[in-house]
Amino acid sequence: MTNQHQVKVELAERRYDILIGRNLVSDIGERARALNIRTAFIVTDTNVGALYRAQVTSSLEKAGTHVSVLTLAAGEATKSFEQLERILDAALDAKIERGDCLIALGGGVIGDLTGFAAAILRRGVRFIQIPTSLLAQVDSSVGGKTGINARHGKNLIGAFHQPSLVIADTALIDTLPVREIKAGYAEIVKYGLINDAHFFNWCEKNVHDIFEGGPTREEAVAYSCRAKAAIVGRDEREDGERALLNLGHTFGHALERLTHYDSSRLVHGEGVAIGLCLAFRFSADLGLCSMDDAQRVSHHLHSVGLPTQLADIPGGCGNADDLLEAMYQDKKVKAGALTFILAKGIGDSFIAENIDPAQVKQFLTHALSH
Amino acid sequence: MTNQHQVKVELAERRYDILIGRNLVSDIGERARALNIRTAFIVTDTNVGALYRAQVTSSLEKAGTHVSVLTLAAGEATKSFEQLERILDAALDAKIERGDCLIALGGGVIGDLTGFAAAILRRGVRFIQIPTSLLAQVDSSVGGKTGINARHGKNLIGAFHQPSLVIADTALIDTLPVREIKAGYAEIVKYGLINDAHFFNWCEKNVHDIFEGGPTREEAVAYSCRAKAAIVGRDEREDGERALLNLGHTFGHALERLTHYDSSRLVHGEGVAIGLCLAFRFSADLGLCSMDDAQRVSHHLHSVGLPTQLADIPGGCGNADDLLEAMYQDKKVKAGALTFILAKGIGDSFIAENIDPAQVKQFLTHALSH
Repeated sequence: MTNQHQVKVELAERRYDILIGRNLVSDIGERARALNIRTAFIVTDTNVGALYRAQVTSSLEKAGTHVSVLTLAAGEATKSFEQLERILDAALDAKIERGDCLIALGGGVIGDLTGFAAAILRRGVRFIQIPTSLLAQVDSSVGGKTGINARHGKNLIGAFHQPSLVIADTALIDTLPVREIKAGYAEIVKYGLINDAHFFNWCEKNVHDIFEGGPTREEAVAYSCRAKAAIVGRDEREDGERALLNLGHTFGHALERLTHYDSSRLVHGEGVAIGLCLAFRFSADLGLCSMDDAQRVSHHLHSVGLPTQLADIPGGCGNADDLLEAMYQDKKVKAGALTFILAKGIGDSFIAENIDPAQVKQFLTHALSH
Repeated sequence: MTNQHQVKVELAERRYDILIGRNLVSDIGERARALNIRTAFIVTDTNVGALYRAQVTSSLEKAGTHVSVLTLAAGEATKSFEQLERILDAALDAKIERGDCLIALGGGVIGDLTGFAAAILRRGVRFIQIPTSLLAQVDSSVGGKTGINARHGKNLIGAFHQPSLVIADTALIDTLPVREIKAGYAEIVKYGLINDAHFFNWCEKNVHDIFEGGPTREEAVAYSCRAKAAIVGRDEREDGERALLNLGHTFGHALERLTHYDSSRLVHGEGVAIGLCLAFRFSADLGLCSMDDAQRVSHHLHSVGLPTQLADIPGGCGNADDLLEAMYQDKKVKAGALTFILAKGIGDSFIAENIDPAQVKQFLTHALSH
């Protein structure tokens, strides 16, 4: 715990802390006691549970907290109505009351699902996030978006519900497959691209140390959480500025949809990596930013082994019409108009409403032929 | 529309109006247009739909709003996870986007269920309440509590989600069975008992006209909405004062549970009527209020044909232990302690925490023997 960071998410009565550092999980019991939590209901998945469930449970029990655990199957399919009902039913069986707490021990799937269950159980109970993937530590565990998938698309059912505490233990990243570290890294880079060219420079220089672990990783996670918390603090419900966090995501979500959320072909962070490159290339095509900046983004993401173009997707992703259709399914569509996050340069993104679908199609047709 | 009332619910950016009057339903199209609603998804039930669905749809379509309708089975069993998923799926099929609107056309079941669907569809879309029962007009359509039932009890899963507009058309009450009007009336009386002795007096004098219809009914509905809106405006999430609205409900909910939510034996408003009488008798037993006040409450509710004691429930409701156990299931239980709303007199209720279960049991044993 030599390099511990604390990020405060400033949301008035819903304010909370994100703690970032190595081996924080073993302190969860004392943290829960400080929040006056007497009874906790942990939701985890088969993979993460096998590694960390005992450690978390034992720390909580030592601190006098009564604990129940529910272990779900690992994977995106768990973000379903069926598993949501299963959590709620089990939490009620465990007699979880209004002042009690749900704990999400896992990656984005477990975090989103458990956070949503906490949002609607007895019209809202507290929850603690212990994100175990790099992606969840720098993105999904910050900002209070919770939800499940519908037949029509991802995250179409959900709620805004802020956690009471987030514990990002960077030692947990050590056990991740390198592909998942890369996927999380795409979201870290995104924060530089949105509004901080200096941080993007820093990433270019420090990428090796972030992957290796050590204090640089904690710094990258803390910077990302701080960047997201700042935006969420100003626009919790995405009425404006928060949409910038979707940089790369309109393309990325469409790609995930067209590859049927098959993680053997494309995981979320990889879709975002390609999406970031496409957003910059599209911006360059529209004369908004320089081609040099677009190439610099692609070059950096490619250098860590992330996919950067449509041709990198195994099995392809359909034609331009398929992509456009998939983008229209995104829940950010308003009254039929497409909204993109585009950029005037690295660290200079903006919300572009009412983008002409014909221009998007022309760009995609071109992108598919390269 | 000679006696139209407007109640403003003051909740900052979630503020909205409740309109009360006869034949307001036929204006819904213009109201929706004023709120800039282009696409609406109506949820109703078989009973209400048969009577009013065509009128509502036609008014909306004349105003240029695109409309879809989903009709569910009437009855409490519809407040289920299964029907919630059905609404969400159908609304997504109908391509309901973030700026669109769900419309609840029905009583409390349809209102609670549809409001909850609106709360979690795309992390929140707008909704309009058209409450068609007296109970829903004076209680459940005001204040933003939405939800469904779980195996463990009623309303255990839900959200706070305020409507954009409530249209309480008092002409719709004309077609209600008198038993349902009585049940709604119990909630009207409750507002006087909570904090306005003058309104209770007014009810005693005007009860006949309220049941008959006409301007007095509109006044009673408007008063009730205003009373609830005032409390909700000060305490939206029930951190304090809002709990006063549960006067009669800790007993009432237990009675509903013990009669298995069988509406042939007991409907919600009847449970509340008995609960109000018990709350006042228990208060008198504890020396908090006069026996005269307790008797006056029972006498008035009895005079309109509402049940006022445990013996009035067809088939009974178990023994004192059963009742106490059922009260412990209520979601207002905090860390195992029972909270009651008690009264120092008519119009002078208060939140009583940490009530000794032994005293409750003694009171119930006595109440069961009378």
